[in-house]
Amino acid sequence: MAQPTTKIARHTTEAIYVRGANLVDELIGKLTFTEMMYFQLMGARPTPAQVKVLDAVLVTLMEHGITPSAIVSRLIYDSCPEGVQAAVAAGLLGVGSTFIGTMEGCAKNLEEILAGPDAEHAARDGEAARARAIAQRVRAAKQPIPGFGHPHHKPDDPRSPRLIAVAEEAGVPGRHIRALRLLAKEVDAAWGRHLTINATGAVAALLGEIGIPQEVMRGVAVVSRAAGLVGHIREEQVEPSARHIWNTVSEQVPYSGK
Amino acid sequence: MAQPTTKIARHTTEAIYVRGANLVDELIGKLTFTEMMYFQLMGARPTPAQVKVLDAVLVTLMEHGITPSAIVSRLIYDSCPEGVQAAVAAGLLGVGSTFIGTMEGCAKNLEEILAGPDAEHAARDGEAARARAIAQRVRAAKQPIPGFGHPHHKPDDPRSPRLIAVAEEAGVPGRHIRALRLLAKEVDAAWGRHLTINATGAVAALLGEIGIPQEVMRGVAVVSRAAGLVGHIREEQVEPSARHIWNTVSEQVPYSGK
Amino acid sequence: MAQPTTKIARHTTEAIYVRGANLVDELIGKLTFTEMMYFQLMGARPTPAQVKVLDAVLVTLMEHGITPSAIVSRLIYDSCPEGVQAAVAAGLLGVGSTFIGTMEGCAKNLEEILAGPDAEHAARDGEAARARAIAQRVRAAKQPIPGFGHPHHKPDDPRSPRLIAVAEEAGVPGRHIRALRLLAKEVDAAWGRHLTINATGAVAALLGEIGIPQEVMRGVAVVSRAAGLVGHIREEQVEPSARHIWNTVSEQVPYSGK
Amino acid sequence: MAQPTTKIARHTTEAIYVRGANLVDELIGKLTFTEMMYFQLMGARPTPAQVKVLDAVLVTLMEHGITPSAIVSRLIYDSCPEGVQAAVAAGLLGVGSTFIGTMEGCAKNLEEILAGPDAEHAARDGEAARARAIAQRVRAAKQPIPGFGHPHHKPDDPRSPRLIAVAEEAGVPGRHIRALRLLAKEVDAAWGRHLTINATGAVAALLGEIGIPQEVMRGVAVVSRAAGLVGHIREEQVEPSARHIWNTVSEQVPYSGK
Repeated sequence: MAQPTTKIARHTTEAIYVRGANLVDELIGKLTFTEMMYFQLMGARPTPAQVKVLDAVLVTLMEHGITPSAIVSRLIYDSCPEGVQAAVAAGLLGVGSTFIGTMEGCAKNLEEILAGPDAEHAARDGEAARARAIAQRVRAAKQPIPGFGHPHHKPDDPRSPRLIAVAEEAGVPGRHIRALRLLAKEVDAAWGRHLTINATGAVAALLGEIGIPQEVMRGVAVVSRAAGLVGHIREEQVEPSARHIWNTVSEQVPYSGK
Repeated sequence: MAQPTTKIARHTTEAIYVRGANLVDELIGKLTFTEMMYFQLMGARPTPAQVKVLDAVLVTLMEHGITPSAIVSRLIYDSCPEGVQAAVAAGLLGVGSTFIGTMEGCAKNLEEILAGPDAEHAARDGEAARARAIAQRVRAAKQPIPGFGHPHHKPDDPRSPRLIAVAEEAGVPGRHIRALRLLAKEVDAAWGRHLTINATGAVAALLGEIGIPQEVMRGVAVVSRAAGLVGHIREEQVEPSARHIWNTVSEQVPYSGK
Repeated sequence: MAQPTTKIARHTTEAIYVRGANLVDELIGKLTFTEMMYFQLMGARPTPAQVKVLDAVLVTLMEHGITPSAIVSRLIYDSCPEGVQAAVAAGLLGVGSTFIGTMEGCAKNLEEILAGPDAEHAARDGEAARARAIAQRVRAAKQPIPGFGHPHHKPDDPRSPRLIAVAEEAGVPGRHIRALRLLAKEVDAAWGRHLTINATGAVAALLGEIGIPQEVMRGVAVVSRAAGLVGHIREEQVEPSARHIWNTVSEQVPYSGK
Repeated sequence: MAQPTTKIARHTTEAIYVRGANLVDELIGKLTFTEMMYFQLMGARPTPAQVKVLDAVLVTLMEHGITPSAIVSRLIYDSCPEGVQAAVAAGLLGVGSTFIGTMEGCAKNLEEILAGPDAEHAARDGEAARARAIAQRVRAAKQPIPGFGHPHHKPDDPRSPRLIAVAEEAGVPGRHIRALRLLAKEVDAAWGRHLTINATGAVAALLGEIGIPQEVMRGVAVVSRAAGLVGHIREEQVEPSARHIWNTVSEQVPYSGK
């Protein structure tokens, strides 16, 4: 096995370098967090369009109210107030397949639609055919299709058109958004009714547009949610809810054994 | 016990509100991640100076090479590739007292220096006296003083003057930076030699300047490190190191039992 | 949605009840940990045979030297010595699909072998046929077959015959062990060479014998590994290795960027 | 820095050794989990009395109903059903200072009482004096005294006398139990009313009796709680509560922002 190496960072007595750039002279005070995150992750400086899109995604995913991960962070903070990092980490463990996995599932479908080796003209026809095949395959299996549908926001998730508009105004290539629209059309046909493109579907397309590989998309959600959870921990410090949550849940999941 | 409430987010069928702002109309595409994080955490929109300072802090803390938390995230990713969030969470559990606790310790000392109820003129004298008292107290106890000294970067940690310069150029109030400088002077006197203000010391002052409470400062580090760890997980996906790390450590921590 | 309930525990001012038994009068000082764990998990007191088997499994999985999860717990302990629980939790996040997932995969195959609705005599023939079908299917897909093969222990993993012997001496029903042996025979045939039943394969059969559902088998491994990791944390307290690990890995994963 | 070593485990092609014993020949099928855990942690085989005491402690701490850590494990399991280990790990992060820290605090006090270098006869007087000094010091500081008092179980926590009785019947040396009783007497005097020895207080004494160092006592609680949490995850698989918990908490922590 060849010795693995890292291309991320190195340091000398005088200086720290990240992705080949001098942290002090070239990055601190010059890059925003979002620019730095893209640089760290992708090894290349982002374009202004890529920054705009990544910011929009990070802003969208940060906060959703009293979600399971927020409840978890609040309870762990109360149990272990000396460990803010543990409270965040516990909440992040909820960024699993149930909620965020749909983003990855949608991204895989978009990649399948875009993956044809056809020439340009034929490609467009091929994309539509592949979108149709995916929609019909998932529908026939009586499975939910990732990136579509929402329990609360009907008829449409308001975040999705906004996210797509931000990306198009920023000037992204548009391939993944095109694939998402093709898929949406075929989903409505296969289901025989309108299913909204939900936020995870739109986020999958946007992250695809800026080159984030599907395998690490969940990491983007994790970073954004980490910031959201820190907000909940701060609120817990000021207005504690954990004991009330504990009492409430104890009453609401009563004992029914012998 | 009064029922606790949340002031962070709410949603209706049509809209999502975070901190009272309409997510779709007012935040997505309009705020950067850093602006949104400040808004989420503090409940108020940041000034441009506050954004500049928070970005500088987040950029500084993101990445430090093959650190313990990066090693941890790489190993957990290899053991559980289906759970990027678990790999990040495991690494974040290393953001504990050993490395990041010094930021909080320094922030507490700065608060003590600034906490005097004196009038403006007297306050300045009081600040110097309190800085001296802290330095002498810690030195007498033969303890390290949080926020000062660095094992590699000598004579000075290059990040600290840069961070302070960014904050001053941005136009922060300057109280915490003043307290840090007073403390630095007294530390050198008490130790009888020059100790550098290290990055955690400068970060403590900068976060104080933008109003981040000491109790939640660690959360800011956690968010930044989360982004750094996602970069390591991505590199692990492309150029795996975990098995080599395992083999190396097994050899380097040999069995010495009976 | 009907209100969910719990059948696990309740308490009054005077007493605590777990699974309907008085903790103080009926459990403390009367049950071993292993008996209590089975009772907690299954809601029924274990037979002596079930205790013997569960003990054998828990003893087998506890400790494997300087593994990734042990390295992780040691590094996190060094970063956060105030949080022993976080060091254990971080290491446990490595009990994922790569190492322990094979136990579940083997358990699923055993269930498939045993799942036929045939009458007793036909069942035996059906079992052999289903074992052959599984082995051939996995081999045709050029996949590894969970529960078989081992990189170090050749020709045979010494733990597996021992585990099976303990279970048979204890007097388990023997259906899962029979299925495992059928599968082993067909695996050797399909691969054209001998593949050892490894420890995760044997553990899958044993946990099946005592009625642990496949969906929660990983939890048994987690409990055992937790005890193993506490041993590593204790050794780290007495003879610290984390800084040496960090230095070693830094050197062994060198920078190769620009 | 001298190279650190491990005394825990090693393996050859044919065999695995833990603490110098052959895993297959000497441990599997011969040791209970509790015996193996003590051996792994302490590097020495436990006496029957030590096993009895450790079992009693592990049985006591395993399960407490719908606690914060149980709620956390249930919520994370629902969010990430592919990661039972992550659900357990998240719950374990709640084994922090708030609930289990009192065990360590009590253990430290017992060590202080027992730490006098006096001769045997004088030691007894010294112990009483040191117990009195601790009680008066904590009371004067208006602090709670770890290991004493309970919000629900009045006048006495029923687990504590039972744990002490189990240990005394097993035949432990009795020094830590003696120190706990001395402390209990002085606590009642200093507070001017009866405070019960609670379960964490009794556990601290029992773990001291069997030689578990105070620094790693929390690890014993972590192992026991891990088993308890696996029980909750199993119940969540059979009778899901997580969505009901989410809904309930959302309603019970209502929005009060602008």
